[in-house]
Parts: sequence; C-alpha cells; structure tokens
Amino acid sequence: MTELKEFVWKANLDLFRSGLVLLTFGNVSGIDRRRGIIGIKPSGVPYEEMKPEDIVLVDLEGRVVEGGLNPSSDTPTHSELYKAFPDIGGIAHTHSPYATKFAQSRREIPCFGTTHADLFHGPVPVTRQLTEAEVGRSYELNTGKVIVERFAELSALVIPAVLVAGHGPFAWGQSPGEAVRVNIILEHIAKTAFGTMILNPELVPLEDYLLEKHFQRKHGPQATYGQKKGEPR
Amino acid sequence: MTELKEFVWKANLDLFRSGLVLLTFGNVSGIDRRRGIIGIKPSGVPYEEMKPEDIVLVDLEGRVVEGGLNPSSDTPTHSELYKAFPDIGGIAHTHSPYATKFAQSRREIPCFGTTHADLFHGPVPVTRQLTEAEVGRSYELNTGKVIVERFAELSALVIPAVLVAGHGPFAWGQSPGEAVRVNIILEHIAKTAFGTMILNPELVPLEDYLLEKHFQRKHGPQATYGQKKGEPR
Amino acid sequence: MTELKEFVWKANLDLFRSGLVLLTFGNVSGIDRRRGIIGIKPSGVPYEEMKPEDIVLVDLEGRVVEGGLNPSSDTPTHSELYKAFPDIGGIAHTHSPYATKFAQSRREIPCFGTTHADLFHGPVPVTRQLTEAEVGRSYELNTGKVIVERFAELSALVIPAVLVAGHGPFAWGQSPGEAVRVNIILEHIAKTAFGTMILNPELVPLEDYLLEKHFQRKHGPQATYGQKKGEPR
Amino acid sequence: MTELKEFVWKANLDLFRSGLVLLTFGNVSGIDRRRGIIGIKPSGVPYEEMKPEDIVLVDLEGRVVEGGLNPSSDTPTHSELYKAFPDIGGIAHTHSPYATKFAQSRREIPCFGTTHADLFHGPVPVTRQLTEAEVGRSYELNTGKVIVERFAELSALVIPAVLVAGHGPFAWGQSPGEAVRVNIILEHIAKTAFGTMILNPELVPLEDYLLEKHFQRKHGPQATYGQKKGEPR
Repeated sequence: MTELKEFVWKANLDLFRSGLVLLTFGNVSGIDRRRGIIGIKPSGVPYEEMKPEDIVLVDLEGRVVEGGLNPSSDTPTHSELYKAFPDIGGIAHTHSPYATKFAQSRREIPCFGTTHADLFHGPVPVTRQLTEAEVGRSYELNTGKVIVERFAELSALVIPAVLVAGHGPFAWGQSPGEAVRVNIILEHIAKTAFGTMILNPELVPLEDYLLEKHFQRKHGPQATYGQKKGEPR
Repeated sequence: MTELKEFVWKANLDLFRSGLVLLTFGNVSGIDRRRGIIGIKPSGVPYEEMKPEDIVLVDLEGRVVEGGLNPSSDTPTHSELYKAFPDIGGIAHTHSPYATKFAQSRREIPCFGTTHADLFHGPVPVTRQLTEAEVGRSYELNTGKVIVERFAELSALVIPAVLVAGHGPFAWGQSPGEAVRVNIILEHIAKTAFGTMILNPELVPLEDYLLEKHFQRKHGPQATYGQKKGEPR
Repeated sequence: MTELKEFVWKANLDLFRSGLVLLTFGNVSGIDRRRGIIGIKPSGVPYEEMKPEDIVLVDLEGRVVEGGLNPSSDTPTHSELYKAFPDIGGIAHTHSPYATKFAQSRREIPCFGTTHADLFHGPVPVTRQLTEAEVGRSYELNTGKVIVERFAELSALVIPAVLVAGHGPFAWGQSPGEAVRVNIILEHIAKTAFGTMILNPELVPLEDYLLEKHFQRKHGPQATYGQKKGEPR
Repeated sequence: MTELKEFVWKANLDLFRSGLVLLTFGNVSGIDRRRGIIGIKPSGVPYEEMKPEDIVLVDLEGRVVEGGLNPSSDTPTHSELYKAFPDIGGIAHTHSPYATKFAQSRREIPCFGTTHADLFHGPVPVTRQLTEAEVGRSYELNTGKVIVERFAELSALVIPAVLVAGHGPFAWGQSPGEAVRVNIILEHIAKTAFGTMILNPELVPLEDYLLEKHFQRKHGPQATYGQKKGEPR
C-alpha cells in the first residue's frame, strides 16, 4: 500500500504544480484494484505540506482503513466512480477556472478542435442538477451517482471527464497521474473553446471524421502517436 | 504588540505573493481586540521592503499609537469595519482584477457555484455610490460607513467580503491571514462568475438548497471539511 | 551622462521584469534636461543582454551623440514628446496586451474606478489616425506630433499616457522609472476597464467628484498618500 | 548533422520555455537544405527530458534517416511545407491558446495593429477544412497540402504563419529559432486581436499604408529596425 500512497501523493503534487488548484482545493485519488483499496488526499491539508503517509486509505464503501487524517470530503464521489467505471485507476477533481465556467454555466464543452478530439470522443458532458433530496442526504455519494447516470450511454474510457453542474470537473484515467494529465488538458480545451465560442457563436462542432481520426490516432489499434512500448526513450 | 505586527506583516507578504496586488497597492490589517489596537500596512511602502516593525499601530479612532510611518490612507475604512463587525480579526483590501471588474461595473457577484457557496452565504454585495458630500469630507471613513450600511441586513460572519462601487473589494476574517485567504478565493469566484455570465447570460444563481449544503459543510455545526481541531496534521 | 545611462538601463530592465514586453519590443528613455540629452534603449537588443553602456545618447533632434548602437526606431517620437512636454523626465513605450487592445480598437479608456483616478485626471486618450502623407515621411516624428496634437487641450502632467491608434501606449513621468510604473498601472487599468465594459456595457464613467478626490489624494497639495519627503522609510 | 540536431533541440526548448506548449504538445523542426535533411522533435517525449541526440533526422519524404525514436506525428506536414516553401529553414507548431481560438473558429486574424504589421504582410490566413477523403488517407500530409493550397496566391516569406482550421497554428522562418519567435509573436497578435474585436466589433483593419510602412521598416531594403549586420551588439 506504500506504493499506492506514493503514486497518489505524487499526483496530488503534480496537480498543485500545474497551477490548476488554489490553496487546499481539489483532490486526486488512485485505486489498488486487486485489494479494492483507494488512496485519497486528506481533507483541507495544504498540498505543499502533504507527505506520502498523509494519504488516507479507504475501501470501496469509503470507510477509512488506514491513516490518521480525515479523507477528502469528496471521497464518496470518488468511490462511486471507481465502482461504476471498472477500468479507471485514478481520479482528479479541481475547480480549474475554465472548466468550472462551463460547469457553472451548465453547458457541455463542444469539440471544436483536434486537441479535444485527441483526448475525448465527443463533447465533455455536464451532469443534471441534483434534486433537493439528493443534496440533503448523501450529497457527495449522489454527486457520484449523477455522474454515473450521465454516462449511461457514454463510455468513461473514451470520455475521461465530466462537468458537475454548478460545481466543477472530475477527470479520470488509468492512473492518478493520468487523471491529472487529463485535467490539465481539459482546462486547455475549455479555455480555447470559450474563446472560440466568442469569436464564432454560430460554429458547429468539428466534423465527425476529423474527431474520429484524431481520437484513433492516439487511442485506436493503429495509434501512431508517441513511442511504442519497449522502445528506448 | 510585537505579535500583532508580525501577523499583519506576514499577511501583507502573503497578499503580495498571491499576485493579487500591484506595486504598493492594497493593504492588510489585524486587530488586538483586548487592547483595541489595529496594526496596518504603512502607506506607499513596497511590500518586499516592508519589515514587521514598519507595521503602524492605531487605535479604533485611527490615531497612530506606535510607528514612525504614515498608516495606509484606507485606515479609517478599516477601523470603521472593526467597530461595526465585532467578530472579525483581520481585513484585506486589494484592487484584484476580477473583483474590481465587478466593483467597477457595480454588479454583485451572483452565486453560480459551490466554491462560492463554500465561503459566502449568498451573492457578494456591492455598496451604493457615495454622495458628493460623503466624498468631500472624511471620504475613507464614509467608505467604511457605506459598507456597514450595506450590511444592515446581512451578517459579516457569513458574507466575508464586499465590493465598494467604483473601487474594489474589502475582505475579512478571524485573522489577517484568513482575510487574505478570503481575498484569494474571492478573486477566483469573480473570475469564474465572469466567464459563466458570458457563457450563459440568462443563468439563475445556484439552487438555495445546494448553496446551503456547501456553506454548512464548511461552516455549520455539522461541518465535515478539513481536520478536526486537535487532530494531527 | 553615466548616471543617465544607468537610470535608463535600470528602467528598461524593470519594464522587462514587469512582463509587459515580449522579446525586444518596447523601449524606455530618460532625459537630462540641463544638457538636453536623451538616453534611450538601442534598437532590437534583447533586454536581458543589455548593459548600461549600450544605452544610446541622442540630442533633442534625435542625433546620436554617444553610443555605438542604433537608437530605438521610436526615438523621434520620444524626442518630440520631450520637446512638447517640458515637465516630463522619462518615457516608456510597450505593446502591453490590454492597453494595445484599446489602442487598436481606437477607443479611449474611460475612468471607471479609483485606481484609474489615482493616476489619470480623466480618460486615457487615443490619437487620431495618421494620414498617408504623415506615415510616408517622418513617420515616427509624426507619431510624436499627433500625440502632442491630442494634448492641445490636455495636460501631460495629469494625463501621463496616451494610446496611439492602431499601435499601443506611450506613458511618461518625472523619471524613466516613473514612466515604467505608469505603464504597469495603465495595463491594470485597461484590463479592469475591459472587463467592466463587458459586465456593464451601459456604464457611465466614475462620478467627477470621486475622480477628483482620488486624483487629489495622490497628487494635490493635500495629498495624503505615501510617506512625506524626508520621513524615514 | 550534429549542428542541425542542436539547433532544433534548442528551438524546442525555447518553445517550451515560452509557455506556449502544454505537456508534450507542439513541435519544432529545422532543415539542412544542402543535404535535404530535416531534424524534428520525437513524438510524445517530454520537452524537459529531451536531449539533442533525441532529435530525429528524416528526409524530405519523411523517411527516418537517423535516430532511435519515432518522429513527431506531424512530420509529413513539416516536410510538405519544406518542399513547397524553399526559403524557409524552420517550422514551429503549437496549440497556443489564442491562435488556436482563431483556428478553431475558422476566422483569419485581421491586421489591427503595428505589431502584426511588423511581422505579417496582411491577415494571418486560415486553411479550408479537409474533406473526409483527405482525413482518411495521409491526413498529416494533406494538412501540409491544404496549407500550400492556401498560399497559392500568398508568399510564405511575408506571411510566416497559417492557422489550420479546427487545429492550430504552424509558423516558420529562416531557422528553427526564428519559427519559434514567430509563434510567440503570433500568440501576442492573436490575443490583442481577440480583445480588439470585442471592444470594437465593427473595426476595419489597419490602413494599408500603415501596414506597408511597418512591414517595410522591419523587412524592406530601407529597414531601419535593429542593428546592421556586423555592428557590435
């Protein structure tokens, strides 16, 4: 479990260094699928003071199994996502400015460009608004459920982030580090989409065939981007 | 009083390092409630050259009681707030860009998201415009009075900042450091609200029940955020 | 003249460190009024490589009197301003983003806030567009003349900057360092005015009595800002 | 060829340090015209870990002639440009935010100011959208071809960049370092044009005679900017 703590701690530091989080906001978690144990940032602890041993270990029901600190208050949201999306290994949550502007305005981020298509196989979706009853009881858990509901006909593998209405983005990937990387790119996508919509309010999204090409170039069996596994770096 | 000077000096440095202030603009103060003494930044001194002993001590009427430098020209505004809001221990004033855009446009910042709801129990209010007479005599004192007037039916405890029309934000908290923290978050809130209003000009504020949930999560008796007092950090 | 070169070199470095200039763009000059000699940045030399001895000395007609490098191509604009505005001691020119947005859109910057009123006694003016003949011959000199023409009924002492239409800002002050300081504040003013105009397109400028109050607070005989001359710092 | 690798490596580092690229996005190449060999960034390698020997050498058909890593997936676009524009010596490609906003909105960048006119002899053009067939086969090569098509009646010497619709900018120059410099200035131009269009949506471009003056001041036989060759720096 020391390794899980190290990975999660490092990913939290990467998030902090990316400039996407203010003060103690935001959190990154990772999961050890074999044991069903999640490592997550402790609540309200400054990033720069956090040590690997401060990472809190919880089970898939969110019960603390190791660690002297309270886990992030968003822990039930994370655990719900790990249960619903069996292929993901890390989750990052921030209030990064441009993604949050879209989340607050309750508008999805249309795919206007190839950077978006490289990572997302379609627009970045927004959840529906939670009801008063859902907020009143098990709010954080229901935040997870409403994300899962939004993905009823979407694949979390090819749409690796969501905007929670009135809140902010959750992003995920195969590892905590990849979840942070998705969040960094998501913020860039949101920023350029924001300006694109101002410059050309009538713009329709990128042609499907170009979206498909870019997505497959990085993700499909014919992927041509990067270095093949085993090649020298 | 050496401790008050240290706290105020440190909070002024934190404000400078946050990037929210240009040149010598802005100021932070703190109060020793037992003695009724305020420590405040000297006027026009560069932040990076300031030393703890440069912090000027004044009484609640704004009279200098210790220090060889002139206190900030905004001192009468600070002292008026300390008199009206007995629970606050520190005040920070900046011309941070996004909060100032709202202050200059004389529009309150609506609550569009959970970051806002975590800190403010409603929109960030704007003062009314000062009259010519109020500007002509005791301008800085009247700036304080018009803030207090705006809070006639608001609680400074749950709305820890205000936008002075045509000027900029004043933020407060239990300590000088907390006032700076509020100002940093306020700037983030103003920035995301600005973009939200562009993306969705017809948007209504966050549902009351969600605002309430987030505010209580951090402030109410059932607060679940952060580490309990006395717990190890 | 070594002292003039040092002052001008230092102010150019300050401009570079402020982040307002890209690559080799922009320039700062200073004048020794007693001798009628201007020191100015050499053309196209990277800021971080510049040495005090690289500063070029020219007379009020723009003829090089000392220095092995070509002076900034904007030198005739600077010398024209020094001739027309006898009280200024330094000039800074940049293409800083927000001031340039206003210059390019050929709109003056209205006074919407107290930061503006602290420094400018009214809106920041824009020059008229140069005619084809004025551009064709002695373009840089005519840029200076059209600025001076714009100030026919304005005082350069209380309006320490101008936006050259389709180009960018020129700012000035009692010294090269003060000219840089004006440019830094001008960029902040332009940025907040830009956002203010988006949030409230119908907004009228700040009340005259508030503009007057702020301007006099920093500049009038009853100035209360900063530390009195001779006081310890 | 060691020298080509050094130049290309250094220009890639300069691009990274300019802040215009995120993570491993973007790439810079250079060409040795005498041998017909292109040096280009390897695909997906982090900038800060790249070493000069990682630069991949390819011929004008894009075949790897030296290097153990895969070249950038955009290599066929680069080689197509080197074949069509015989005077260029370096190419830089980024997804820099403001240039990308224009590329995604499929709007050219009008010339609104002298910074633009100093570098570009007219608006920065946008390519037409690729057809489904062009995307389906030899996509990256066709990206190069559609750029060349856009320049049928333009000179790459005086318009040193293009916006690929729905993608981002490609910039070029006499060397890899100059291509990076063009990209940095292009981003500044796009940023100020963006704001100019918001402040003044009806604005027409800069007068032709002023555009001509600025372009010739830096590029024509009567160029007066900078230091003459052979002069001390």
